[in-house]
Amino acid sequence: MRAIVAESADHLSWQEVPDVSAGPGEVLIKVVAAGVNRADVLQAAGNYPPPPGASEIIGMEVSGVVAELGPGVSEWSVGQDVCALLAGGGYAEYVAVPAGQVLPIPPGVNLVDAAGLPEVACTVWSNLVLTAHLREGQLLLMHGGASGIGTHAIQIARALGARVAVTAGSAAKLDVCRELGAEITINYRDEDFVARVRDEAGGADVIFDIMGASYLDRNIDALAADGQLVIIGMQGGIKAELNIGKLMIKRARVIGTTLRGRPVSGPNSKSEIVRAVIESVWPLIADGRVRPIVGARMPIQQAGDAHKKLVAGEVHGKIVLTV
Amino acid sequence: MRAIVAESADHLSWQEVPDVSAGPGEVLIKVVAAGVNRADVLQAAGNYPPPPGASEIIGMEVSGVVAELGPGVSEWSVGQDVCALLAGGGYAEYVAVPAGQVLPIPPGVNLVDAAGLPEVACTVWSNLVLTAHLREGQLLLMHGGASGIGTHAIQIARALGARVAVTAGSAAKLDVCRELGAEITINYRDEDFVARVRDEAGGADVIFDIMGASYLDRNIDALAADGQLVIIGMQGGIKAELNIGKLMIKRARVIGTTLRGRPVSGPNSKSEIVRAVIESVWPLIADGRVRPIVGARMPIQQAGDAHKKLVAGEVHGKIVLTV
Repeated sequence: MRAIVAESADHLSWQEVPDVSAGPGEVLIKVVAAGVNRADVLQAAGNYPPPPGASEIIGMEVSGVVAELGPGVSEWSVGQDVCALLAGGGYAEYVAVPAGQVLPIPPGVNLVDAAGLPEVACTVWSNLVLTAHLREGQLLLMHGGASGIGTHAIQIARALGARVAVTAGSAAKLDVCRELGAEITINYRDEDFVARVRDEAGGADVIFDIMGASYLDRNIDALAADGQLVIIGMQGGIKAELNIGKLMIKRARVIGTTLRGRPVSGPNSKSEIVRAVIESVWPLIADGRVRPIVGARMPIQQAGDAHKKLVAGEVHGKIVLTV
Repeated sequence: MRAIVAESADHLSWQEVPDVSAGPGEVLIKVVAAGVNRADVLQAAGNYPPPPGASEIIGMEVSGVVAELGPGVSEWSVGQDVCALLAGGGYAEYVAVPAGQVLPIPPGVNLVDAAGLPEVACTVWSNLVLTAHLREGQLLLMHGGASGIGTHAIQIARALGARVAVTAGSAAKLDVCRELGAEITINYRDEDFVARVRDEAGGADVIFDIMGASYLDRNIDALAADGQLVIIGMQGGIKAELNIGKLMIKRARVIGTTLRGRPVSGPNSKSEIVRAVIESVWPLIADGRVRPIVGARMPIQQAGDAHKKLVAGEVHGKIVLTV
């Protein structure tokens, strides 16, 4: 089969690689499209090695058609349209994935766009709902509101009845967020998000952060009492000073999570999250309350360009690569 | 009435002060005994001002007899033996307290020893159960296991079916912890708690910490996957470097809390916690699974000496001051 091979961050090439097949408990998917994630960019640059046992090929999510069932798999059928959450291997013609990480295509979503759903849906649901228990009337502050994850998080939060504040770096991006339901839109280039969130809402109940170190102290300042800071990315660095006194006064929580490092099955696993997404998010997509936001579709041979667009923040919503 | 007046940390004197009475929604308690807490020591030294509206007199918990009911209070009766969680004012002959912060005396506990229960019971239950959801089979690491809060937390964790590791600074203190049910006992003066907890249990599911900054990084190292670090004290400082990457890999949480700064009523309030303690902890005391550990009873005129004993760590369990 063919797949993207990352010789370096700047040199991604579509070339012949060894075939894959479905092992015990796995489903082999003939890939129609692959979603692009920041983890792919980090991995291509050699900064995010795949977890033990995962494919060396980059790619965290795909859509496609079931091509083969491994021993012990009965819940999927060959020929079925599906999408899947992967530990890697998505930028390829075929990928093998544990059956518990496969999802049906939500009603009304085309097969290509569905490639951009598993990562955002599982990341947002596991963090906002399963971890932070965001609920009606609370305020979510979402950093990077126009990103793939941001555009999905805004919609999920609104569907839960929560209010949403976002940060983004341009007026056009803030417009996208506002159309999706964000109420407080903050251009981080010329506004202080701490002041805006405090002034307009008294603080955020949940902050969903992709910056890490550079935002840590200000995020805690922006939290309301009993607030939760959920960090899923470290674009602003790994280490920062934590003021424990501020945490205690607010009874606040700092939570770090990843999706990729979770076990395949068992408590807090990928399969558990996938099941929750099928049960709770897919119906929201089916009834139109949440829709996939795909800002660019590109042939997979242009994966390198897609990564550049992601890093430059040029695309609103997800980028998907078609095979 | 008479009360302790803190001229300075080293000069606590029992002297005449203005009388107090029960305001709307309050109960006036004739104090029989007052529990000693680290917050009292900090407040006597001028480092922990009472929250707005609270008494300037130190003392976070008492036992005694209901002397008067304020307007609107019907759930308590004059002459009833009670104990109470206070925002301040306990080192006195009388104290007024919101009715929602009053508790009955648990069956089998004498009135003097009951003075040492409200703070530890509310602190431990709110943090271990209402916040961290400690459950059967999980491992709790309790720093300062022989302290008032430590001796209570060990018993509550065991009653929940959790396993307990403790740190303390002497063999005698570790013996006390072991008798109460601690399984992994670590002398922090000559052992590395991170290595012990990892080697013997693979990491702690919940860490209950009173050190703050000086233990932050090591506490995170000692957590298991999905572990929670709950910080309720900062004896080792306020600010420390947080490695967000470590948090993310473990999907760990750092939670800071205080009891004193919580609202009187409403969500996450003192009254809500007191209600949960009466419902869930008092039955454990009634059936003998949890008992008050009082290491010293002293006349309230010796409050200064009691504070010195607390700071020196000379007493296992609580110190109570009798009026």
